[in-house]
Amino acid sequence: MRYRRIPDETIRRLPVYLRALMEVSDSGQENISSGKLAGFLGIAPYLIRKDFSYFGGFGTRGKGYEVGALIKQICKILKLDVPNKAVLVGVGNLGRALLAYPGFRAFGFEIAALFDAASDKISKKINDLVVKSVSDLADIKEQGIRIAIITVPGKAAQQITDELIDAGIKSILNFAPCHINVPKRVKVVTINIAMDLAVLPYYMSKK
Amino acid sequence: MRYRRIPDETIRRLPVYLRALMEVSDSGQENISSGKLAGFLGIAPYLIRKDFSYFGGFGTRGKGYEVGALIKQICKILKLDVPNKAVLVGVGNLGRALLAYPGFRAFGFEIAALFDAASDKISKKINDLVVKSVSDLADIKEQGIRIAIITVPGKAAQQITDELIDAGIKSILNFAPCHINVPKRVKVVTINIAMDLAVLPYYMSKK
Repeated sequence: MRYRRIPDETIRRLPVYLRALMEVSDSGQENISSGKLAGFLGIAPYLIRKDFSYFGGFGTRGKGYEVGALIKQICKILKLDVPNKAVLVGVGNLGRALLAYPGFRAFGFEIAALFDAASDKISKKINDLVVKSVSDLADIKEQGIRIAIITVPGKAAQQITDELIDAGIKSILNFAPCHINVPKRVKVVTINIAMDLAVLPYYMSKK
Repeated sequence: MRYRRIPDETIRRLPVYLRALMEVSDSGQENISSGKLAGFLGIAPYLIRKDFSYFGGFGTRGKGYEVGALIKQICKILKLDVPNKAVLVGVGNLGRALLAYPGFRAFGFEIAALFDAASDKISKKINDLVVKSVSDLADIKEQGIRIAIITVPGKAAQQITDELIDAGIKSILNFAPCHINVPKRVKVVTINIAMDLAVLPYYMSKK
């Protein structure tokens, strides 16, 4: 594979670049310099140039990088150039917020199935999808869904995780406020919003 | 200041440690080894020992770290040992999900004021707080609130940000799906959920 050696920290920055480049592209701009992108993102220009060099995205002196070509390359590396179906487990406030979130579709994600445990939510229709009972999670196997988004309470998270993995899920975006155990072959990204908030008072006190 | 030289990357890991230690403490455990904590978090044991060494949190051989003492120290460094009031702007699905989120209170945060632009939300009561109109944002100045959480649509985010800063806000947790410009003295953490999701297909394809 041509992209094999891209380091993990570069991979983690690619979505950040991608979103910025999409904003730039939407504004009608066809080229951007690493300096301008750096100012926009708060990432050092040399780091941006280094990151882009991994996949041969060299800029032209005086013209900068070609925005459209960069977007295409980053999407290809991140495997976002093919549609990615995801299942959402938990359609409470956070689940509904995620369903309404425009960013998913922009990155090629489609939430293709909804599940919940609450009887007052099961069989309801949200965004043209009928909410199914978590007791039917095995259904996703037939739909070929490999990505799951979990927004269930902490105490339910591990069981749901186990059932999702049994149903063929290969990667999980976890919003449940707890750690979940998975086999090594499954990738988990846990999002804890309070942790992002928790660094703010420290930085405030330094200013 | 005693804690001045703690590097930024260690600071960013402190909330991760804090949450794990809180979970350990809740389960009734009084000590934990760096090895166990490492297994729990997926962070290398040497890195944990290095991070903890910055604030004198040395473990005892065979016994490990004292969980309660570590929690206290990390809270002190992160300035979470004093109550931190925050204002929430935008009480849509995401805003309501954040209000219900138990993690904020666990870290000493209190959402003390709510604002929205929609007339059907203004004057409604949520969690004992009356939702105010964004045209009254200046009110937070008197409440001594320094932290803001923004969950407004992208097109409203910059104006809200400017008004918040005028009203004395020093740090912002931004959920709006766009970049916001702030003066250097203001700290912003932008959360883009789609970006966390965007790395999953890449890792999936490697397994």
